[in-house]
Amino acid sequence: MTYCLGIITESGLVMAADSRTNAGVDYVSTYRKLFDFSIAGDRVILLATSGNLSVTQEALSMLEKDIKTGSDPNLHNLTSMYEIAAYVGKKVRQIQEQHRQWLEKDQIDYQCSLLLGGQLQDEAPELYLIYSQGNFIQATQETPFLQIGETKYGKPLLDRTITYQTPWRAAAKCALLSIDSTMKSNISVGPPINLIGYEHNSFQINHQLTLKLGAPYLVKIRKSWESVVKEAFDRMPDIDWDHHQEAAIDEATENMFVD
Amino acid sequence: MTYCLGIITESGLVMAADSRTNAGVDYVSTYRKLFDFSIAGDRVILLATSGNLSVTQEALSMLEKDIKTGSDPNLHNLTSMYEIAAYVGKKVRQIQEQHRQWLEKDQIDYQCSLLLGGQLQDEAPELYLIYSQGNFIQATQETPFLQIGETKYGKPLLDRTITYQTPWRAAAKCALLSIDSTMKSNISVGPPINLIGYEHNSFQINHQLTLKLGAPYLVKIRKSWESVVKEAFDRMPDIDWDHHQEAAIDEATENMFVD
Repeated sequence: MTYCLGIITESGLVMAADSRTNAGVDYVSTYRKLFDFSIAGDRVILLATSGNLSVTQEALSMLEKDIKTGSDPNLHNLTSMYEIAAYVGKKVRQIQEQHRQWLEKDQIDYQCSLLLGGQLQDEAPELYLIYSQGNFIQATQETPFLQIGETKYGKPLLDRTITYQTPWRAAAKCALLSIDSTMKSNISVGPPINLIGYEHNSFQINHQLTLKLGAPYLVKIRKSWESVVKEAFDRMPDIDWDHHQEAAIDEATENMFVD
Repeated sequence: MTYCLGIITESGLVMAADSRTNAGVDYVSTYRKLFDFSIAGDRVILLATSGNLSVTQEALSMLEKDIKTGSDPNLHNLTSMYEIAAYVGKKVRQIQEQHRQWLEKDQIDYQCSLLLGGQLQDEAPELYLIYSQGNFIQATQETPFLQIGETKYGKPLLDRTITYQTPWRAAAKCALLSIDSTMKSNISVGPPINLIGYEHNSFQINHQLTLKLGAPYLVKIRKSWESVVKEAFDRMPDIDWDHHQEAAIDEATENMFVD
């Protein structure tokens, strides 16, 4: 399994990914899933991948090959993030079409999905989720984060903390914690964690890191988070077992439960 | 969707369930999913259900009918929780067998699963998860909680807070928060929340409540939790982007990531 996420806020873009892949619990490996195709000063293009490794690796190879051979289009000559999302989606379609019948015969899952984030000169920064079928959606101010892979364990944290106004440095911390929560609940997601922080309009990647197994910062945030959660329970008001039965249904507050 | 959980600790047993069912997003209803078959002073038997509603309702009807008609076995004359788990599993198998071919024709999911918790005289309190196939597993001191339905959103919280030593009253708060986290991330899980707390060896249910839409306590714990999470981020040490690259892989700390 895999867990990658992207967060786009007013001030910047954060992309993060774990590095664990597995073909069953008895064959676990480490592969990087976060890739940087930026040209400093001109464009920032980041891709994170999940799903069938042979498909995503072939897609990345083709993207690189197009750049090297100067094919038109490629990641370095397209003029909008939207066009890049469509181009990457098309590559994924081509590769799957080529292998589909062979993989389907043995019920092997050939699905994959990608996150694409970045900024081109004279364009706003954007973040996309490209589905296995090659279509894609974009993050918005209302929904500033997108996830692929094992998305559920790490989502409650994002739901409660991330808005479009969150400073990107805080969003980066939140991304790490979201991956850490996922690693704790699902051992098929694992380190090293790759993290990139991009400040809008800087047109270059100045903040990236790889947190390996046992990285002191990762240990520190996990411990810090656990103690905060425990503290929170101690501070939580006790349940009043006798006086809750009659709590009124208040339609006006209904959206509290679905917002 | 549904989310139910059971927690068994040194001092007591907690069972909790949401009440939302849906047949697609355009047909949402409210059904109770937590049921009490206890006989005060003699035995405590609690069941929580998830999955196909027609199957779980029929299972409950059959369990009630067996008690009323004095059939042997029934929930009130079996002499161990283990036997009760096997008996409930057998009922589920019978019902599914009866309907399977009709539901399969239209690709309707007839799966269901149940949580069974309680205590019989001269027995230790126990908690079981009964699978759709009728087999079952038991919670242990190492794994003191079991979940059914939409389990992932609410698990990180449990992983970080619940141990066998957790007082049952604290476990009850944690169960509510776990359901609340799930409701926030998945609107197919919704109130009222039913919650039962059982103190071991009391042989009767003294603590139960239904938290309806807008119940003040639910609003209070959600707000309190959100502010704690936000505070936690402010207190979290900042990322030192320049000095993490070299973090050593320390095999001795590897288990920190999989424990």
